[in-house]
Amino acid sequence: MQRTSSNIYCGGNTLIFMKARIKAGIVGGTGYTGAELLRLLAAHPQVEIKIITSRNEAGTAVADLFPGLRGHVTLKFSAPDEKALAACDVVFFATPNGTAMTQAPALIEAGVRVIDLAADFRLKDARLWQQWYGAPHACPELLKQAVYGLPELNRAAIKNARLIANPGCYPTSVTLGLLPLIEQGLVDEQHLIADAKSGVSGAGRKTETPLLLGEAGENFKAYAVPGHRHLPEICQSLEQAAGKKVGLTFVPHLVPMVRGIHATLYARLKDHSVDLQALYEKRYADEPFVDVLPKGAHPETKSVRGANVCRIAVHRPQGGDTAVILSVIDNLTKGAAGQAVQNMNLLFGLDERTGLDGIALMP
Amino acid sequence: MQRTSSNIYCGGNTLIFMKARIKAGIVGGTGYTGAELLRLLAAHPQVEIKIITSRNEAGTAVADLFPGLRGHVTLKFSAPDEKALAACDVVFFATPNGTAMTQAPALIEAGVRVIDLAADFRLKDARLWQQWYGAPHACPELLKQAVYGLPELNRAAIKNARLIANPGCYPTSVTLGLLPLIEQGLVDEQHLIADAKSGVSGAGRKTETPLLLGEAGENFKAYAVPGHRHLPEICQSLEQAAGKKVGLTFVPHLVPMVRGIHATLYARLKDHSVDLQALYEKRYADEPFVDVLPKGAHPETKSVRGANVCRIAVHRPQGGDTAVILSVIDNLTKGAAGQAVQNMNLLFGLDERTGLDGIALMP
Amino acid sequence: MQRTSSNIYCGGNTLIFMKARIKAGIVGGTGYTGAELLRLLAAHPQVEIKIITSRNEAGTAVADLFPGLRGHVTLKFSAPDEKALAACDVVFFATPNGTAMTQAPALIEAGVRVIDLAADFRLKDARLWQQWYGAPHACPELLKQAVYGLPELNRAAIKNARLIANPGCYPTSVTLGLLPLIEQGLVDEQHLIADAKSGVSGAGRKTETPLLLGEAGENFKAYAVPGHRHLPEICQSLEQAAGKKVGLTFVPHLVPMVRGIHATLYARLKDHSVDLQALYEKRYADEPFVDVLPKGAHPETKSVRGANVCRIAVHRPQGGDTAVILSVIDNLTKGAAGQAVQNMNLLFGLDERTGLDGIALMP
Amino acid sequence: MQRTSSNIYCGGNTLIFMKARIKAGIVGGTGYTGAELLRLLAAHPQVEIKIITSRNEAGTAVADLFPGLRGHVTLKFSAPDEKALAACDVVFFATPNGTAMTQAPALIEAGVRVIDLAADFRLKDARLWQQWYGAPHACPELLKQAVYGLPELNRAAIKNARLIANPGCYPTSVTLGLLPLIEQGLVDEQHLIADAKSGVSGAGRKTETPLLLGEAGENFKAYAVPGHRHLPEICQSLEQAAGKKVGLTFVPHLVPMVRGIHATLYARLKDHSVDLQALYEKRYADEPFVDVLPKGAHPETKSVRGANVCRIAVHRPQGGDTAVILSVIDNLTKGAAGQAVQNMNLLFGLDERTGLDGIALMP
Repeated sequence: MQRTSSNIYCGGNTLIFMKARIKAGIVGGTGYTGAELLRLLAAHPQVEIKIITSRNEAGTAVADLFPGLRGHVTLKFSAPDEKALAACDVVFFATPNGTAMTQAPALIEAGVRVIDLAADFRLKDARLWQQWYGAPHACPELLKQAVYGLPELNRAAIKNARLIANPGCYPTSVTLGLLPLIEQGLVDEQHLIADAKSGVSGAGRKTETPLLLGEAGENFKAYAVPGHRHLPEICQSLEQAAGKKVGLTFVPHLVPMVRGIHATLYARLKDHSVDLQALYEKRYADEPFVDVLPKGAHPETKSVRGANVCRIAVHRPQGGDTAVILSVIDNLTKGAAGQAVQNMNLLFGLDERTGLDGIALMP
Repeated sequence: MQRTSSNIYCGGNTLIFMKARIKAGIVGGTGYTGAELLRLLAAHPQVEIKIITSRNEAGTAVADLFPGLRGHVTLKFSAPDEKALAACDVVFFATPNGTAMTQAPALIEAGVRVIDLAADFRLKDARLWQQWYGAPHACPELLKQAVYGLPELNRAAIKNARLIANPGCYPTSVTLGLLPLIEQGLVDEQHLIADAKSGVSGAGRKTETPLLLGEAGENFKAYAVPGHRHLPEICQSLEQAAGKKVGLTFVPHLVPMVRGIHATLYARLKDHSVDLQALYEKRYADEPFVDVLPKGAHPETKSVRGANVCRIAVHRPQGGDTAVILSVIDNLTKGAAGQAVQNMNLLFGLDERTGLDGIALMP
Repeated sequence: MQRTSSNIYCGGNTLIFMKARIKAGIVGGTGYTGAELLRLLAAHPQVEIKIITSRNEAGTAVADLFPGLRGHVTLKFSAPDEKALAACDVVFFATPNGTAMTQAPALIEAGVRVIDLAADFRLKDARLWQQWYGAPHACPELLKQAVYGLPELNRAAIKNARLIANPGCYPTSVTLGLLPLIEQGLVDEQHLIADAKSGVSGAGRKTETPLLLGEAGENFKAYAVPGHRHLPEICQSLEQAAGKKVGLTFVPHLVPMVRGIHATLYARLKDHSVDLQALYEKRYADEPFVDVLPKGAHPETKSVRGANVCRIAVHRPQGGDTAVILSVIDNLTKGAAGQAVQNMNLLFGLDERTGLDGIALMP
Repeated sequence: MQRTSSNIYCGGNTLIFMKARIKAGIVGGTGYTGAELLRLLAAHPQVEIKIITSRNEAGTAVADLFPGLRGHVTLKFSAPDEKALAACDVVFFATPNGTAMTQAPALIEAGVRVIDLAADFRLKDARLWQQWYGAPHACPELLKQAVYGLPELNRAAIKNARLIANPGCYPTSVTLGLLPLIEQGLVDEQHLIADAKSGVSGAGRKTETPLLLGEAGENFKAYAVPGHRHLPEICQSLEQAAGKKVGLTFVPHLVPMVRGIHATLYARLKDHSVDLQALYEKRYADEPFVDVLPKGAHPETKSVRGANVCRIAVHRPQGGDTAVILSVIDNLTKGAAGQAVQNMNLLFGLDERTGLDGIALMP
């Protein structure tokens, strides 16, 4: 397809459209990330979903698995079909870790753009990947050309990428929260603390005991304090911004709700005179999906539910030397499928906001 | 404004648009119904929100009250302003019961279409209104011309209405669930049972003890069993369809969740041979916002969350003489603001679905 | 052990105690029913838990699986051990359906009292059991001597039983709610309706997708409308009380909370003059665990959370011919483990309330 | 009354009892702290609740306000009655801040022991109190004799107190979590971080918009980051333990659940060689209500729901210099009413555990 676009003016709305729609394929898509991707792509004015594959659900109508899609998606899950995927413009992997790295090379070879919503291409260092994911990487040679798809950090590279590693949910909220401080070298980057809280959908649609309503409902706990896979991913991005090693204590928690991440970030200021509010407002002034709240605000996860936005507030309690940054996203939207669509928009020269203007569901 | 519309074809999408946008005003709008109305109208391609009034919040930015609207709504709440409202094409009342009936007459006089999301114009009988709402009706003469805004029952009348009484949330789910049976006279209409369950947002954004998370969370109870105001409203619609009096036992319950109504409806069949599934599918075949599920299905409220749709399943357990109808809506969307927008679309000659194609948020 | 007891008066409290504690064994006990049974038995002044078996968890400390029991239960799960179980005074089966019926005969032979919290001995008719549970019954000859352990219906028989079929959670709430009407023949017993709502713990600690917080949270739905296994169980008890066949439409629903059942019961009155409030108060006047609320009340599940009590309210909306009974229990306490302990108390000649005086947790 | 007690041996149980029960009065008691206090005192073997006062609810049966107490508490709320309160052995204040300080002096004068569950006597410095609570203190002279009722810190003083300031919920969880490190001077006490999360019942039974299920449900947010009243209270206790000033960044969050606090505590170790696990186990070895979990564990709030216990786990992620302490309590039990009863037990020479052996409700 041609990636030329043009604008027309219709009754007050400016429409950006393409001569042909983007042909999209999805591998996986039976989990929560897949469901959110389907919700966004089904409503995207420039996308046509051509195929969605699932070994387990082949033959099942997508709308039978996700009844909320009745009337919006008529596709059935197909058995894996390399040829059909290779005929797409873009293929999203909404699969468990370890799948995309076995299938992406052939697709890229065939000229398809690949966006992996799992972790296969997030870490640049194959040894580090093996250390945290417990298996050798299947195509370490692709790690170099993969672009980490955080537009606020890597927009230019994303536009020209062939393979995008869509960021993890915690890393999106933590990195966006710390980026302005780190880029400017304003804090002790050896002792950063990220106390992060996530709704259960962040763990996926896995039938594991701790994710039952009977367990996770009316309950709150930390988990993986000794080490969580998102730790090296966050550090990698912060180190890219800092130009040096960083030290981070990252503690994730499980919140008795479905969607939403709240990251509470602590950093020791080197320079007490900096105007944090101005710093953040300036850093994100042109970002369509980062919203810096007014001074003194406390963002809530509900304000971003279903919306592709990160809302951030900046505090310095009692005027002390500890900056406290509050950062919220919907883990399935800006933290996964929404960001993937944002990356797709960049890849195909669309307005970055196309199909991503949904307003958060409140209450 | 002129209510002429035309279609253009843009890159695969058919756009229905109007020469000028509908100028909309909102009275109230600080509650949940108002928030949902703002969410829908802000994204509606043919509407421009001109004014939103609130005595208590005058001067406050709408997005300060509802942070999820940041970046989408820049209006501030105004003090009540009859002149500005009278300059609108349509005014929505998202106010407590008893407000619209004092302000609607002047607006209608001024040629404005009025859609009341409260109960002021739902009952045709002013004495019945007084009996259930505890005060005399302020403009009983308008009750006759008010149209009960359930499109599936009164579409033709809605198109020509000047004043629309937007249905209650329970009545929407219960009436749509029973309508096919009642219209065909297939059941004992003297002994209908509606066991209805609602998320707490149905009670509005009222600071009342039973609506606290500390009370309503991890809790389930019935309420208002001796009599709920939606009872006469449901009966009125069913009687319109039946052409005779009906008897209904209506028991509402409070569910520990935010959005959603599930009505479980019981009716004794007069004729055992009727094909209920076919009856419902035929009745709602052309309805854009009623979805009859396949035989044997159980609709869930999450499948309609944030979407303007009613999903219905039909059962006859053990082949007995009791029909069991399951009907779900989002109380704030098809049960309130979404239906109000649907009514507005009908009033102004737009495609009924304009601005209402949002997909349910899952999970 | 000897089942003689005596009272002493200690500082204002009357203590009923036994010369030796009851030696209790538990088979299963890794699910929610088992956890609740452990909570109650660990605090029971006349019980010593001697053994708890689990094939999967053998060797694990009970308090490792259920950290809330740290400091209260020091036992480890054992591998199945017939000899150790046979040395107990009573053995509770907190196992999936189909287990107790293979192991109970040997224990009963050995003189052990058996209380099955699953469904193996609830239905008197082995063919009916096979029809609903999908397999032949392993010891149909025991069905006759098994006593259905609803004390309010079968107290005398329970005291002398060797094998107790502990009732299901829905059947407990529905049966207690309808019993007074059915016993007196006051309603059309051919067209009873039980619209029942349960927290997710009623489904057990099973890792099934619909029980995930991501699915069941912020969601409400009916399930098993065509037929649920508790239907024949309820009918059997009501038929015992009525002395004739009954007809029941039973619709269970899943509530986004952990504990609690609310049954909303509808019955057509034959005689309009009956004083329902007086009827219920009289019927349950001497029942320690059935609480008839004052006229006009609406019981809430939170008022029984963790407590072995059923609270009931009686309504007749608009003075019509439909009685509406509201009945709440905690599905794990009066609906399972609490009732099992109540049955044990009866079996061993203790005060029925021993160890069951816990107050509901509010909020 | 005489505070002599004796033991008797009854059927295997050791009973500690007093010649006469403690006569207890409650001022306030219509909120959640009061409800929990009623639950605990109603079941306490050595207490008789003589009076509970509430200006608003005078004449209402306690069990009408809290139906879960039906059958357990027969008292009605009285109008304030100084004489009746003065006849008690102990009076609990479960009132808003500012009430106890006006009424406690007269009661203490009359020889009554006073336990204030609000904040009136928690801070030793009247000027600090005024700064954080916004009004002058009504009886600063009592602040000196008031004992801060954290038994793990002040047990000896509590036993001889006449006036006990029952700790706040956050301070209980945070202080118990940091105490061993602070007492031993092992960390940089100038840069402590307490990231605390609480269920909504911590805010009381107040009808405020942010506490509605419609707001707080499916939502997570920080609040009061610029400064929360529990900050000076925590610092005061830590400074008592450290013998010097401490610096603390304290960020509270609201969790969409009813009960429970999880404090995640960060401290920079001065000495890397210390065995944190051994330190905590030793420090709390004799504490009946502090449970140090095994190495590597993650305590969950559900494991302490309704139980008077604080469970703590100690981590040092990646062997770095940041200690991460996880501390959970039930904010209404160990964080309020349970601790008040623990303090009462100490005051009256009872076994500290009397009436506090309830097991957490799981699930």
